[in-house]
Amino acid sequence: MQIKKIEHIGIAVKSIAEALKFYEGVLGFNCYNIETVEDQKVKTAFLKVGEIKLELLESTAPDGPIAKFIEKRGEGIHHIAYNVAHVNEALHEAAQKHIVLIDEQSRAGAEGFQIGFLHPKSTFGVLTEFCGTND
Amino acid sequence: MQIKKIEHIGIAVKSIAEALKFYEGVLGFNCYNIETVEDQKVKTAFLKVGEIKLELLESTAPDGPIAKFIEKRGEGIHHIAYNVAHVNEALHEAAQKHIVLIDEQSRAGAEGFQIGFLHPKSTFGVLTEFCGTND
Repeated sequence: MQIKKIEHIGIAVKSIAEALKFYEGVLGFNCYNIETVEDQKVKTAFLKVGEIKLELLESTAPDGPIAKFIEKRGEGIHHIAYNVAHVNEALHEAAQKHIVLIDEQSRAGAEGFQIGFLHPKSTFGVLTEFCGTND
Repeated sequence: MQIKKIEHIGIAVKSIAEALKFYEGVLGFNCYNIETVEDQKVKTAFLKVGEIKLELLESTAPDGPIAKFIEKRGEGIHHIAYNVAHVNEALHEAAQKHIVLIDEQSRAGAEGFQIGFLHPKSTFGVLTEFCGTND
C-alpha cells in the first residue's frame, strides 16, 4: 500500500464553536470550512496544520455515531485518516491482510472525498480511515 | 502562537512488535527508530508518514502512564504533539489563555526534543503536547 500522508485527524467535540476557542484562539489555526455530512449525522469543521487537517466532529443528533462516542468515551481524538491513491483498492488490500472493515466499499465523506473505515478491533484500538478517490 | 506542523501523533499500544504488523505490514510505513524514555516508563517507536510521525508508545512498567491509559481506555490514540518554536514560551502563552498545564516547564522527551503537555480537561479531551526546543 502506498500512503504518502495523513489527510486529517478526526476529533469528537460537543460543540465546534467551543472547541474553536482552543484551536483558533490558543493554537492559532484557522477554520476554513464547516460542512454537514447528513448520513453520518455530523457537522465537521476543518483547520489546516501544515500538510494535514484537523477535523472537528460535532453530532447533529443524539443517536449519531459521534454523540455515542462522546457518551461512551468523552470528547477526544476519534480517528486518523490516511490519504490513499484508490480507496476501494486500499480497503480490499487491508481485508486480504485480515483487517476487519467497517466499510467494504467506500462512501461519500466530507470535502468531496470517498472514505472507508477499518475496524479498531484489528488496528490496535485506532479507528482508521482511508480517504481519497477511486479514479 | 506560531505552529507550522504536527510533530507526531502518539498511539498507546500493548506491544510495539504486534502493532508494527499493522503499521508496517498493512499500511506500509517504516519504523526507523525505537528508544526508551526512562522517566516516562515508556518505549517509543517512530514511523514517518509525510511530514509527521506516528509514535507508538509501549509501557515498560505496570505503573507507567501508558499502562494506566490502556487499563482505563484500551489501546488507541493517546496525544497530538505540535511543533512549536519555543516550548516554554508556548506553555506560558497557553497558561495566560487559561489552559491548564501538566508541565509548567518543558522536560526532555524522545528524539532529543523538549516537550510539555497541556491538560485534556481544558483542551476538549485531547491530550496536547508542545514539542521543540527552547533556543
